[in-house]
Parts: sequence; C-alpha cells; structure tokens
Amino acid sequence: MNTKDLTVALINRKSVTPEDAGCQQLMADLLEPHGFDIESMVFNDTTNMWARKGNQSPLFCFAGHTDVVPSGPESHWQTPPFEATEIDGYLHGRGAADMKGSLAAMLVATKRFVAKHPDHQGSIAFLITSDEEGPFINGTTKVIDTLEARNEKIDWCLVGEPSSTERVGDVVKNGRRGSLTGDLIVKGVQGHVAYPHLAKNPVHLAAPALAELATTHWDNGNASFPPTSFQISNINAGTGAGNVIPGELHVCFNFRFSTQVTDKQLIERVYQIFNRHGLDFEIKWTFNGQPFLTDSGKLVEATQAAIQSVTGTDTLLSTAGGTSDGRFIAPTGAQVIELGPVNATIHKVNERVKIEDLNILTDIYYDILCRLLLK
Amino acid sequence: MNTKDLTVALINRKSVTPEDAGCQQLMADLLEPHGFDIESMVFNDTTNMWARKGNQSPLFCFAGHTDVVPSGPESHWQTPPFEATEIDGYLHGRGAADMKGSLAAMLVATKRFVAKHPDHQGSIAFLITSDEEGPFINGTTKVIDTLEARNEKIDWCLVGEPSSTERVGDVVKNGRRGSLTGDLIVKGVQGHVAYPHLAKNPVHLAAPALAELATTHWDNGNASFPPTSFQISNINAGTGAGNVIPGELHVCFNFRFSTQVTDKQLIERVYQIFNRHGLDFEIKWTFNGQPFLTDSGKLVEATQAAIQSVTGTDTLLSTAGGTSDGRFIAPTGAQVIELGPVNATIHKVNERVKIEDLNILTDIYYDILCRLLLK
Repeated sequence: MNTKDLTVALINRKSVTPEDAGCQQLMADLLEPHGFDIESMVFNDTTNMWARKGNQSPLFCFAGHTDVVPSGPESHWQTPPFEATEIDGYLHGRGAADMKGSLAAMLVATKRFVAKHPDHQGSIAFLITSDEEGPFINGTTKVIDTLEARNEKIDWCLVGEPSSTERVGDVVKNGRRGSLTGDLIVKGVQGHVAYPHLAKNPVHLAAPALAELATTHWDNGNASFPPTSFQISNINAGTGAGNVIPGELHVCFNFRFSTQVTDKQLIERVYQIFNRHGLDFEIKWTFNGQPFLTDSGKLVEATQAAIQSVTGTDTLLSTAGGTSDGRFIAPTGAQVIELGPVNATIHKVNERVKIEDLNILTDIYYDILCRLLLK
Repeated sequence: MNTKDLTVALINRKSVTPEDAGCQQLMADLLEPHGFDIESMVFNDTTNMWARKGNQSPLFCFAGHTDVVPSGPESHWQTPPFEATEIDGYLHGRGAADMKGSLAAMLVATKRFVAKHPDHQGSIAFLITSDEEGPFINGTTKVIDTLEARNEKIDWCLVGEPSSTERVGDVVKNGRRGSLTGDLIVKGVQGHVAYPHLAKNPVHLAAPALAELATTHWDNGNASFPPTSFQISNINAGTGAGNVIPGELHVCFNFRFSTQVTDKQLIERVYQIFNRHGLDFEIKWTFNGQPFLTDSGKLVEATQAAIQSVTGTDTLLSTAGGTSDGRFIAPTGAQVIELGPVNATIHKVNERVKIEDLNILTDIYYDILCRLLLK
C-alpha cells in the first residue's frame, strides 16, 4: 500500500477517542513482517501499541495517535467524515491531517527504509495511542511509564502532529509551552438584589482581581518561547433570576507558560493576587505538563536537513500552539520534535490533506531515518 | 367568616401565578352583599378584580394579589403548602404572609366598617390582581390604565404587601426604589487558548469595567431612600471547554435607585464607563419602574396613628426592599403605603403567619378606614 491508500484505510476506521477501531492492528499487520515486535498495551478504555525492531541503541521512535476528534454533525461536511474521499488532489475525512496521514507516511517510510537498509544502525519503534485527543490519562503517559520501568530509553522521537502551516515542513515544533489550569470558586453570600447589605456579591469582589490577572505581565518569554499567556476560558455566576445576588463565582482559567517561569511560581503569584484582594476563594489546579524544548541536537539537525533535501526550503522551529504527547516523552531525556502535514483544517469540518503532501512527508520521514540510522 | 378562616379558604385555593383559582370570586361573593360593584378585568392569562362601593371622593383603595410564588418541592415543607394548617398559633401555607392573610384582613375590616358605618364618607375599592409575583404585565398596570381611561382616581391606596419585620406594623413602606435591569453582551473573538494573539477575550476586556461599576458611588440617597445600589446578578462566558477563549461575555445587572438619580442618568453613566474602556458591547435595558414616595399626607398620618392606637408602638417608614405594584398606582397621583404581616417567611418553605397578627392587622385596617372615611 502507498501512503495515500493507507491513509484511506485508516480514515475509514471510525476511531473517535478513545476508540482505536482496528487502526493499530492494521499498523501491526504491516510492521510485523518487517521484524517488529508488537506489544498491545491496554489501559482501561485505551488501546496503545508499542512496536520495536532491533535491540540496539540509539532508538528512533515514531509517535502518534489513531484516535480522532468527533466529526460534529455529518450534514455539515461536504463528504462523509469517516469515508475518505478524494477531491481535487485532496483526501477528505476526519483524521486526514490529524494524524492518520502522518501514521501512513511513517509506516510507508519505515517499510521502505528497512527493506532498502536491512543492516541499519540502532532500533526503530512506534509508540501509538488512541487517547491523544481525550483525557490523555491512559495513553502515551502510561506507555512511557512502562518503558521507563523496564529501562527502555527513546533517544529520538518524531511525533507526527500536523506542525506545518502552509507547506509540509515549513514549521517543525521543537517544544511546547507548559499548561496549567485553575478552577476557581470565589465565595460570597447569596441574597436579594433589593437587600445588598445582607449579601456579598462574589462577582463584584472578584472583578478587580480578575482585571489584574488579565493585565499581568507574567514573563518576557525567551528565544524559544513566546511570553507566558493567561486566559479565562469560562466564567459563571448567578441563578438565572435577575433579582438574586449570586453566592458563588466560578472561573476556569489556563496558563500556557514558557521556560522562564514554573508552574509553582505561577500558582504562588495567583494566590498573592487573590489574597491581596481579600477574597474568600478556592482553586483546584490541574497541571497539564511542563514546557519542554529540544533546541538542538542530531534529531533537529537531521529533520531540518531532510526537509531541505526533499523540499528545498528552510524550516522554522516553533514552540507555539497546543500541548501534545511530546510532553510525556521529553521528560525521559529523549530529543523530541513534531513534524506532520498542514494543520489548517484540523478539528474542523471538511478536514483534509493534500495527497502530494503525503508523499513529500513520506520522503522526509525516510530521509530522517537515513540521516540518523545509516553510517 | 373571621380573618383566620378566610385566610385558610384563600390558602387552600392553589393560585400560583398567574392562576387565581377562584380567590377573587370568593372575595367578590363577600363584598357584593355590602354594596360593592364587582368588575372582573381579564387581560390575557391574568384575572383582575376591581370592586368599588360608592361614587364619592375621596376613594380609598385596598390593593393586593391573589397569586403566590410556587412552593418548590412539597417534600421540603412541614405541612402541605396548599392546605392551610394551624401549628402553635401560626397558620402555615403558601401565601399565608404574602398576601392572602392581608386580603382576608382587608375583607373582614371592610365588612365590619361598612356594617357599622353605612353612611361613611367617600368610597372604598379593592384592586386585586393575580400576576403580582409574575411578569406584572397583565395585572395592576392594566387595571390602572383602565381606571385612568375613564378618569377614575384613587386618592389613598393601601397595598397589603408584608411590610413588617418583627411585629405587625413595625415597618410601613411609604415608597420603593426604582429598578432598572441591563442585559449586557461584551463581544470578543473566540479562539484557542494556545493562540491568544488570534483571539480577543471578552472577559479580560470587560473585567476592569465591571470592577469600576462594582465600586462606583452612584449617589448618597436621601432622607427617604438609601443610596442607589448596583448588583451583577448573572455572568456567563465560555463553552465549558477549558481550552477555548470565549467569544462573548453575558452579564445581567440591576440598579435599585433612589430619587436622587433617574434611569436616564444611570444608563448614560453606564455607557460612559463601557465606552471609556473601549468595549464592543450591547445592552438591552428593562425598566421596571421609577422610584415613588408618599412622604407625608393623610394616608401616612392615619396609618401611623392606627398602628399606634391598636399596637401601642411606633412605626418606621421605609423605602427599602423589592418592587411592588405600588409603583403602578403611585404615578396616578395617589398616596400609596404598604402595610402587611411579618415578612420573615415569604417566598420560603413553611411560609406562615401568626394568627394573632391577622386579627391585629384587621383592627389596624379597620382603624385606618375610620380615620380616613368618618367625619
């Protein structure tokens, strides 16, 4: 199968998180004949696959996910989201760009590489999960725990997330910001709007503190990271009735933070602000990952050279954008980069990938393998 | 029937807004034999009653409502909310204090007065609605429109709202603050929290303006009114997801305002604040009534003297608390006061009224009629 046909086969398996829908079995069936040992690692509702060929160092690992986000109403789509359809050189379908096209390109590149270079150095592995788009509890993080427990170390990890913005390879992610979420409750005293002296309005009490949080300058970022960003994603208070002063205010906020601050420092600064405003409050923190960065090294060099070789263009290293499973792999000491197709349509209706880009991506992945695992 | 028995009969008629459930017919049946002309005024879903005895000036009017707020889950009540039950000298049931006890006291006082003083001066009327607890669109305001259209003027109006706080007559409402509601939408641009530069967070944009509104000193009030109060009753933004910057912020707020400002001035000051903060916003205003005040005159004098005569205690004139249908009657030029039982349990489970208080209230109402309509 070529990359396009394999992408079609994966799109047609309706693998909405945490369903894998047989995608990993399809991948295993293609890898096993080439000498890969397949381990299926099932944690609760999530199916993961660890496939490895060879026992030697260094270990190069392709990482990715078979699950996709829901399609939303199918009637909003130009084509059925779970039936891959070719239109004008594009393959349409949920997961085409995020990231079944990448999975197909990894497989085809790997098959080509091991067929042509059976005596390559090191080892090749696939770390595939089906919960990247979900709660990321039973996926990559648990596989990494398992590998760490048996002292199996990844040296170079290429995550197939759709990193490109206009052309394949124009942007490679070599790190990500940290993410920290706070669920805030500000407590007041409920009452009738006609008797404000008997109530304490938590919206009024919190407004100056929220205004301060919204305008606080958290850091300047650095060469690899934009400045830390604070965003309120949800705010709710009130019974719906117009004559009741609410008793509680709920606010959900999120930090995307650079390596110039730590999650502990951010938490401390938030507490300082709320305490200075004299609020009666509680915050439940959810820590979604430290920032990570692979600012140099053989993996970055090989990736940039491969893109230059295949496409003739330079690559921008970026740490912008959302979190990815790279955050679970980087702390093991692995070099991690993310390289995949153009991300313009991901998580949207009519998600699609250019068929030509699938072949370019396959060639780049192949070239990276050559640069890292051949003498 | 005495006041207690009549209160029982009214409570047992389940008249949740806008239902009247036969309460007005019961009242009409008691008034008609005493020379009252009964007019039923039905506007859409609301039944109103205008009952008048006599054609002379001055016209004294008892005003009130037969509808009650819902009981909430009956299992939370000590007794069935729509079966009046006597416990330890109290009558329990929805509407006992707000305001079926007052209606009963008005009726018994009136029957006693017209039986004993058939040649009294002036006229007596009852203006009774069944939508005071609801949208107040088809109730008192429409009856007043009808009376105004035929040039029928109320001179003195006693609204039976439960004004008392600890003892019957300790507080009489001689006015109410104005009420003005704003439904605010602040517009931003929705986006992913990871890409804040592509979004505009309306919560962040609005927070400083809301903080300013919450701390603005609107006026000092005056001898009759507390300072104008601003309260945010509801605030909502966000999709529920923690990684989406909301596109809009919705805020509902309410002013209770004194006679030191007008609704127009408040609206202008709110626009000034939002414009100064550079917000893209819309406000839908709902005007619930101008403040009104009956600061002196025969009605206030008679009421205070009657309370002193019956209970031996002084009365506090107050304009605090929520709105009432008095706001529709006062603009006609009528003197308006509100006097009813203790309001501690109104709109709550186990609403109740002290049976002794029903008799005291009946005596006060009777005494007021004597002071105003006898030579």
